[in-house]
Amino acid sequence: VSAPADQRLCWIRGAVLPLVEAAVPVADRGFLFGEGLFETVRVARGRALRLEAHLARLARSAADLGLAPPRGVREAARALLERWGARDGVLKIVATAGPEPAPGEPDAPGLVLLALPPRPLPARAREDGVVAAIAAAPHPGARSPLAGAKTLAYFERALARRRAAAEGAWEAIFLGAAGEVAEGAASNVFWARGGRLCTPALEIGIVPGIARAAVLALAAAEEGRFPLEDLLGAEEAFLTNALVGVLPLCAIAGRAIGAGAPGPTTRALAARLEAEADVP
Amino acid sequence: VSAPADQRLCWIRGAVLPLVEAAVPVADRGFLFGEGLFETVRVARGRALRLEAHLARLARSAADLGLAPPRGVREAARALLERWGARDGVLKIVATAGPEPAPGEPDAPGLVLLALPPRPLPARAREDGVVAAIAAAPHPGARSPLAGAKTLAYFERALARRRAAAEGAWEAIFLGAAGEVAEGAASNVFWARGGRLCTPALEIGIVPGIARAAVLALAAAEEGRFPLEDLLGAEEAFLTNALVGVLPLCAIAGRAIGAGAPGPTTRALAARLEAEADVP
Repeated sequence: VSAPADQRLCWIRGAVLPLVEAAVPVADRGFLFGEGLFETVRVARGRALRLEAHLARLARSAADLGLAPPRGVREAARALLERWGARDGVLKIVATAGPEPAPGEPDAPGLVLLALPPRPLPARAREDGVVAAIAAAPHPGARSPLAGAKTLAYFERALARRRAAAEGAWEAIFLGAAGEVAEGAASNVFWARGGRLCTPALEIGIVPGIARAAVLALAAAEEGRFPLEDLLGAEEAFLTNALVGVLPLCAIAGRAIGAGAPGPTTRALAARLEAEADVP
Repeated sequence: VSAPADQRLCWIRGAVLPLVEAAVPVADRGFLFGEGLFETVRVARGRALRLEAHLARLARSAADLGLAPPRGVREAARALLERWGARDGVLKIVATAGPEPAPGEPDAPGLVLLALPPRPLPARAREDGVVAAIAAAPHPGARSPLAGAKTLAYFERALARRRAAAEGAWEAIFLGAAGEVAEGAASNVFWARGGRLCTPALEIGIVPGIARAAVLALAAAEEGRFPLEDLLGAEEAFLTNALVGVLPLCAIAGRAIGAGAPGPTTRALAARLEAEADVP
């Protein structure tokens, strides 16, 4: 079904096909206005990890934003991953508002699932850690109705990551209007300082990360509103998301955090999260 | 080419077809991440008004945001509007980042043009004016790299307009972090007070509206950073965009502006902008 050069697959309207052959209606408001949501789920040997947590977040965001509840996602994921085989990668779920319905017609929301190869990390990212930049844009904060939702209106985050990459950074960290640490463009942030583990509170309007919740279930952490200095003065820090789990964060905007190398808390949590992912 | 019930047309990859048959690649980053730009151009009797100003803004935003310069838009517009006929409506231009290129491959940006019927205004909107709500989200402001660009990451604005419509309002007005008037979700704002015409300055990070510029070419206005109270205490106010021209704004969040009816400055500017649109 797919050329060796491009093994990406797409589930759309009940069919599984190579991603390069898959298309969505121009009229879909997901395309025209970014009116849609997505989840990126880690796939290990063909199995979608923490899928129920992702689906719960997707359903919550859809309800919050007035989108139709995504239906049939589990079945679509099963069909897609069956074709994908026992491989590692990423399951991306995209649920859209669909085209504007004609007056009196019901909503026809869109659903597309992608199976993608794993995204390569920088060399020695797990052993030595990654560096982050500070995003130019302020974090939109909790007043935005989109706060905490992973929407298709992702341009600002994509741009922040691209600009960070141009400086050799893996991630861009957004700060709130008062300079408080909010979140990475595609990750949550943790740090350890004086025996405390800290992470920005959901009340700031950040994405309630699936890996963030997994870390909080393993280790007590103080959730709050912390200035950037608190993070910069930490002994160690790490980023989390569903795809990478726990990734050491060793420098921000050219300033080393702690010894500039993964610390013991980071290493322990990375190992525990990775062990959980290995459980069938 | 199109059923009477749905006369919307789409130009895509050199072909003109009914919008309901047009599709874009799932892999286009315009769809997956909102990485794209759009322009909505008024069409009068088959003619795209102020097209060059729209194309100039599109090119500027693309350069600012690291997107490939959109090419062939004039030719596509010509082909599409030829099929559209001597009708009134909307030309929507959508330029996207395209799919992520394979390593070493060049960018393959996407271009789609839509010809759409005119959007209906509320009854007597031109005679009696429209009302606006205040958006819940703060305006992102000038620090955002997306400031002033009309991007496909439009969910927050679409949601603000939908929520405004649910309250009977035509538009949602965003305020900046300090409470200053920024812009409508899809319009710029002007008001007259004590003989002065006022409008928020571009430095706030607002969209440099094509109709806004046309108004400024006709009437001297003070561009600045004004608190909401300044607008609420105005004698008259109006909204501008390329599709509606000048539209009287008579109340905001339940508070009448001035006499709650279109004022003389608004009426004069609306007539002059409309007269310009009539020139072939």
